[in-house]
Amino acid sequence: MSREIPHIVVSRLPIYLRALEHALGEGLTCISSQELSERLGVSAAQIRKDLSMFGEYGKQGRGYPVASLAEALRRHLHVDKVWDVVLVGVGDLGHALVRYKGFAERGFRIAMAFDKDPAKIGTRVGGMLVEDSRTLARRVQEAGIQIGMIATPAATAQEVANILVFAGVRAILNYAPIHLTLPEDVRVEYLDPVIPLQRMTYYLG
Amino acid sequence: MSREIPHIVVSRLPIYLRALEHALGEGLTCISSQELSERLGVSAAQIRKDLSMFGEYGKQGRGYPVASLAEALRRHLHVDKVWDVVLVGVGDLGHALVRYKGFAERGFRIAMAFDKDPAKIGTRVGGMLVEDSRTLARRVQEAGIQIGMIATPAATAQEVANILVFAGVRAILNYAPIHLTLPEDVRVEYLDPVIPLQRMTYYLG
Repeated sequence: MSREIPHIVVSRLPIYLRALEHALGEGLTCISSQELSERLGVSAAQIRKDLSMFGEYGKQGRGYPVASLAEALRRHLHVDKVWDVVLVGVGDLGHALVRYKGFAERGFRIAMAFDKDPAKIGTRVGGMLVEDSRTLARRVQEAGIQIGMIATPAATAQEVANILVFAGVRAILNYAPIHLTLPEDVRVEYLDPVIPLQRMTYYLG
Repeated sequence: MSREIPHIVVSRLPIYLRALEHALGEGLTCISSQELSERLGVSAAQIRKDLSMFGEYGKQGRGYPVASLAEALRRHLHVDKVWDVVLVGVGDLGHALVRYKGFAERGFRIAMAFDKDPAKIGTRVGGMLVEDSRTLARRVQEAGIQIGMIATPAATAQEVANILVFAGVRAILNYAPIHLTLPEDVRVEYLDPVIPLQRMTYYLG
């Protein structure tokens, strides 16, 4: 059933969830689609339509129950559990990712970190051991990790991605500024900061 | 005329540019839409259609001239110049951004960095002075900076964004995990890593 939801709708769900979690933090118990709309810049009609696909209806005049809607979205997004993630590349960005506090409470945990630099291998970053890239495939396979983050330079990112996929990874968050060519059943999302910057400068002129 | 190009097309242009720059780095002088397609996972027909909107036609059988097409895209995206960017928040992520080598050659330069932590103000990160957030509005205004990067915690991001907009910033790259509510003529792009991760776990199940 999940498979029938259009990707554009799926892509908005994490944003709804984040807004609901903020609302929860503010102590709200109910929130209307109008209020969500003001917080998200997505129209209230769109929000109602998206959420109705999951059978989540707000009550007229009372809105959505924040806690249970958040719980439902977490379940649909499969973040009602914590996913182990493997990080490859422990440079400045990798450091920041290992130390980032925002993953755990939202469904993710960097469980292993790898680098190929002998000066880094065996050191600890934020309590995490930096392991030797040469053991990447075996370690990931043994642990059954399904999600990878690539924070290497562009030149090595494709090779790293190939190893991750070989080892069983099915979803990759790629920070390296390069497009990855991967099997169709592997998901990739990109976080090269220059891409969104250039999307904005087009309009700045 | 620029305004008539659909945003979905604009959003692909930086990706084409990045691929062309890689091709240039490999010494290619011409590249076909088919070859670009294989490198990008965008169909060749789509690429030809997108680029034709800018009057850039590849020659049948020879493909696009890499250098001049890259130059044209840089001009359309307004990254044939270097934009000064103000960074707010010099924690782990801010550190990584200041030290990131990939901005300069692609049109951006972090020109100023601010934090509100007295322990950080006055220190240097990668050669850049960390300035006091209380001087943010004045400094940005004086320098005429139009692009901001927010790498603060979620709780302060909206306030920082308001100050940036007040000071004349027209485009914001927001790393804080929160939606920003801003005037319609201000562009925002988001880089919360949990959002793309959750978009992928939906399909992992």
